[in-house]
Amino acid sequence: MSNPADVDREEGLSFQPRFDASGLVTCVATDAATGDVLMVAHMNDEALRKTIATGEAWYFSRSRDALWRKGESSGHTQRVVEMRTDCDQDAVWIRVEQAGAACHTGRRSCFYRAVKGEGGEVSLALVDAERVFDPNSVYRK
Amino acid sequence: MSNPADVDREEGLSFQPRFDASGLVTCVATDAATGDVLMVAHMNDEALRKTIATGEAWYFSRSRDALWRKGESSGHTQRVVEMRTDCDQDAVWIRVEQAGAACHTGRRSCFYRAVKGEGGEVSLALVDAERVFDPNSVYRK
Repeated sequence: MSNPADVDREEGLSFQPRFDASGLVTCVATDAATGDVLMVAHMNDEALRKTIATGEAWYFSRSRDALWRKGESSGHTQRVVEMRTDCDQDAVWIRVEQAGAACHTGRRSCFYRAVKGEGGEVSLALVDAERVFDPNSVYRK
Repeated sequence: MSNPADVDREEGLSFQPRFDASGLVTCVATDAATGDVLMVAHMNDEALRKTIATGEAWYFSRSRDALWRKGESSGHTQRVVEMRTDCDQDAVWIRVEQAGAACHTGRRSCFYRAVKGEGGEVSLALVDAERVFDPNSVYRK
């Protein structure tokens, strides 16, 4: 951290996102009302710029290799209340007003399973896993 | 998502973390009391297992290429209240009781700057940026 560029990135007020080898930063979206983590996804430079300019969340889909406006298929958009960046600027946190549900499985949040470790056994338990919508009717019509 | 293995990973109750090419999953740590995002980091298989077994957060540092118990230098440990995984199991969310501060810069959270876009200009503004500790006295003694 004695490198002046690193000091500036951590302590300065210029936005210098540190993209990974694929040109992406990690984005955590939380529900502005409840604080729950809704999803973890990625943004490239264009997704970041469009999110900042429009106040709606845009992401970059690694699986589809494409820019993606959240909710463009489902209508379940995210209005950005606040965006923050972290110390080394390789991640952003957006607090959003989520229309409908964030997860493509129909749940409000992608994090609908708790990880439980008991007696050396690790398993999952459903938590807040009710579906807000039926993915078959939203994505396959 | 018609692949049975993918369906099982999304809907099943077995923990099958999907590690990236470097053997890592993304971990988001939030403050169990406030819901604030404290940090975004990574866990390898061993860090995940130790976190689950001990109830304290362990990470894998990409810059140091080493397993790392959060707070081992600073004393600022994270007690895990709950761990969740997301739909495709390439990320985990831990809600933690943070001792002291999560960020190596001395702030409670790594996300101490808001990203502001006005008139095409993007810049940062300090938010909740008070230092809880002096990093020079904690890390350089």
